[in-house]
Amino acid sequence: MAGGKPLRIGLAGVGTVGAGLVKLLEGPSPKVGEGLLKVVAVSARNRTRKRDVDISGYEWFDDPVDLAASENIDIFVELIGGSDGPAKKAVEVALRRGADVVTGNKALLAIHGTELAQLSEQHGGKLAFEAAVAGGVPIVKALRESLGGAEVRALSGILNGTCNYLLTEMEASGRAFADVLADAQRLGYAEADPTTDVGGFDAAHKITLLAAIAFAAKPDFDHVKIEGVDTVALHDIRLAGRLGYRIKLIAKAERIGEAIVMTVRPALLALDHPLANIAGTLNAVVAEAEPTGQLTFIGRGAGSGPTAAAVAADLLDILYERAGPAFGRPVAKLASAARASPPERGRYYVRLLVKDEPGVIADVAEELGRQEISIESFLQMPGYEAPVVPIVLTTQPCARATMDAAIAAMEKLPAVAETPRVMPIEESAGRSRFWS
Amino acid sequence: MAGGKPLRIGLAGVGTVGAGLVKLLEGPSPKVGEGLLKVVAVSARNRTRKRDVDISGYEWFDDPVDLAASENIDIFVELIGGSDGPAKKAVEVALRRGADVVTGNKALLAIHGTELAQLSEQHGGKLAFEAAVAGGVPIVKALRESLGGAEVRALSGILNGTCNYLLTEMEASGRAFADVLADAQRLGYAEADPTTDVGGFDAAHKITLLAAIAFAAKPDFDHVKIEGVDTVALHDIRLAGRLGYRIKLIAKAERIGEAIVMTVRPALLALDHPLANIAGTLNAVVAEAEPTGQLTFIGRGAGSGPTAAAVAADLLDILYERAGPAFGRPVAKLASAARASPPERGRYYVRLLVKDEPGVIADVAEELGRQEISIESFLQMPGYEAPVVPIVLTTQPCARATMDAAIAAMEKLPAVAETPRVMPIEESAGRSRFWS
Repeated sequence: MAGGKPLRIGLAGVGTVGAGLVKLLEGPSPKVGEGLLKVVAVSARNRTRKRDVDISGYEWFDDPVDLAASENIDIFVELIGGSDGPAKKAVEVALRRGADVVTGNKALLAIHGTELAQLSEQHGGKLAFEAAVAGGVPIVKALRESLGGAEVRALSGILNGTCNYLLTEMEASGRAFADVLADAQRLGYAEADPTTDVGGFDAAHKITLLAAIAFAAKPDFDHVKIEGVDTVALHDIRLAGRLGYRIKLIAKAERIGEAIVMTVRPALLALDHPLANIAGTLNAVVAEAEPTGQLTFIGRGAGSGPTAAAVAADLLDILYERAGPAFGRPVAKLASAARASPPERGRYYVRLLVKDEPGVIADVAEELGRQEISIESFLQMPGYEAPVVPIVLTTQPCARATMDAAIAAMEKLPAVAETPRVMPIEESAGRSRFWS
Repeated sequence: MAGGKPLRIGLAGVGTVGAGLVKLLEGPSPKVGEGLLKVVAVSARNRTRKRDVDISGYEWFDDPVDLAASENIDIFVELIGGSDGPAKKAVEVALRRGADVVTGNKALLAIHGTELAQLSEQHGGKLAFEAAVAGGVPIVKALRESLGGAEVRALSGILNGTCNYLLTEMEASGRAFADVLADAQRLGYAEADPTTDVGGFDAAHKITLLAAIAFAAKPDFDHVKIEGVDTVALHDIRLAGRLGYRIKLIAKAERIGEAIVMTVRPALLALDHPLANIAGTLNAVVAEAEPTGQLTFIGRGAGSGPTAAAVAADLLDILYERAGPAFGRPVAKLASAARASPPERGRYYVRLLVKDEPGVIADVAEELGRQEISIESFLQMPGYEAPVVPIVLTTQPCARATMDAAIAAMEKLPAVAETPRVMPIEESAGRSRFWS
């Protein structure tokens, strides 16, 4: 906070979040940063587009890279998006000249985070990204600073509001994925091309960043195993519900020995799991840390206000000179975590569509028994499109490899009508004692 | 972080949290602070008491005030407790000589926070207290830094694990307060003298501190309206349950115009309220902020590990020179908030014990009607100790003053057997749209 002189902000991207930030910093009675954070220059795709903030008073740049290079700004705020292209180039240019960078760009950091953090260290500018994960939920700072005295063992979260909205709506309305998606697109809750969200990639970018901070490792997006919500069938939501579970898209990162295991996939959660009741577009993260125990953070994961407030929090950290290394430690202290995933083990949900013939259940049960997998619950439901009926079961904990072997064998049974659907069941560490 | 020279810590109070801190900082492979945070001196009531950490290698002080005065320590960690006496004196001595202070002492700061923060500013030592509120939940930093770009409108929380455990156990076991308290005392979940906890005072200390940070005001403990859980009757828990509510001890702070209203009291929460399912000794805080929206934080509010990790987080902030003013702003910028409480308004739960006579319900309803209070739900239950029966009702939103007038009138009805019990119903801002 160099002698009370305002820090000059160059803002690239004046969409909903960028406009929200301008409002926060430049409102009629500016409180954020007490006038020491000033937007002075902007760049956007369209200069004259109708916005609910007036940007005509700021220096204009057609090219965000030129804005990033401008000596008239101290902090470059990147709200363009995209892992490559102009966002990456502009952030690099800003960092190379020692300017601070605040970004909400998860894709950029998940893929190029290590090299950008290195640039930041080499040239002395800060690199901050609270807005990149879970919008208004201050999970980046919590992991980087508040949990600095603890050791994080596992993170799991609902990190994509679009996916969570779609699953919530499917359950509430009993409509299929495609229907609900079309509605969400009309309402602006889903993009015209929804692949990044519904394919699980956005959540994967975010869990990559959280895992890097929590486990002091280089962000390693390519190591995330990703499955989206586009494969979730309405009847699985219904059947899981009958067994007392809810299906959520869970982004997860766990340290297991030397390895870090990261997954994004639909999973079943018992209704007392801390993430089971996170509805609609909300985001949530559960951290399991030693000796802190289980911590849960819930809030709005997107939108103009929450995301702009997260950008503002980063700007304040820079203003008050309390911003540290991007991933909590200097890059030299970030490990390159082992990629070899340890074998997975857990409880599973299996749904089969079978021909309604005598002996089918015995055959299915026999395949599980052959792999020494114990059944925990079993449900056969009438009312499906005959002549096939769904049967669902949950297992006791078993190795994923034996589960896969059992599934492969079941698939060959003449009465099994299509490839069985398998989903993991998420356990909650906090479940064992009801008051812990 | 003066050239990599370790900061020397003097620890006053080596009970469960103090021992947990020693373990964190001095474990076999110290990770917290990478060896730059060293305990060098301790003080405790009993030097030779059996502990699971060895403190014989540290300089010993019989008197914590002497420890605080020692030039051999850079940071004084106060884990003695108590709003006055040795804790206060020692913290003052440390701050006066410019040493940093980290404390978990909510009573001390709730009552003397302004003067201690002033001492810290005058002499240049930091004053940090993450461990004072909600144990391992990093709510102090979240309010002070992460929500720096937002305006907090209201905070509500479950801030006392003992009270929440007692209420959870009463509901789960159907046993009365005194029984459950005696058990909790045996199990170590409640103190031998439980007044500070069950009387609501501990939660009041904590909400005082959170309100000070959130609303940029001097901590003003005397302004909190306090009611404990010792007045909660088992039949109210049951009857509220029948109506779809759960009774929790809610600590709340709200900015209403120029005033800050702080309350600690039992209240009814609909089961979809974000605090309704916080069970046992867990703590949780819900912040309503503009433009962030609703943020919820849940975690372990007490115990050796979570609290020690919170102390460690403060130590790291001091080590990395990112600790700011105690209450988020210099004392000169903290307001002295107006104490005149605006009139309360809300929905209420009313439980009466009435003689089982014809016309009683009509009489009760008439008194409410006279005050123009509308009834939302009404329940009469058999199976109580005849000849009195409980009747319970919830109201539509109304002024507390009219509610009190109606109660006073009901109390005079010949069929009403004792003073009616009134509790507020907490609304959840997040409730209006199920996906927001």
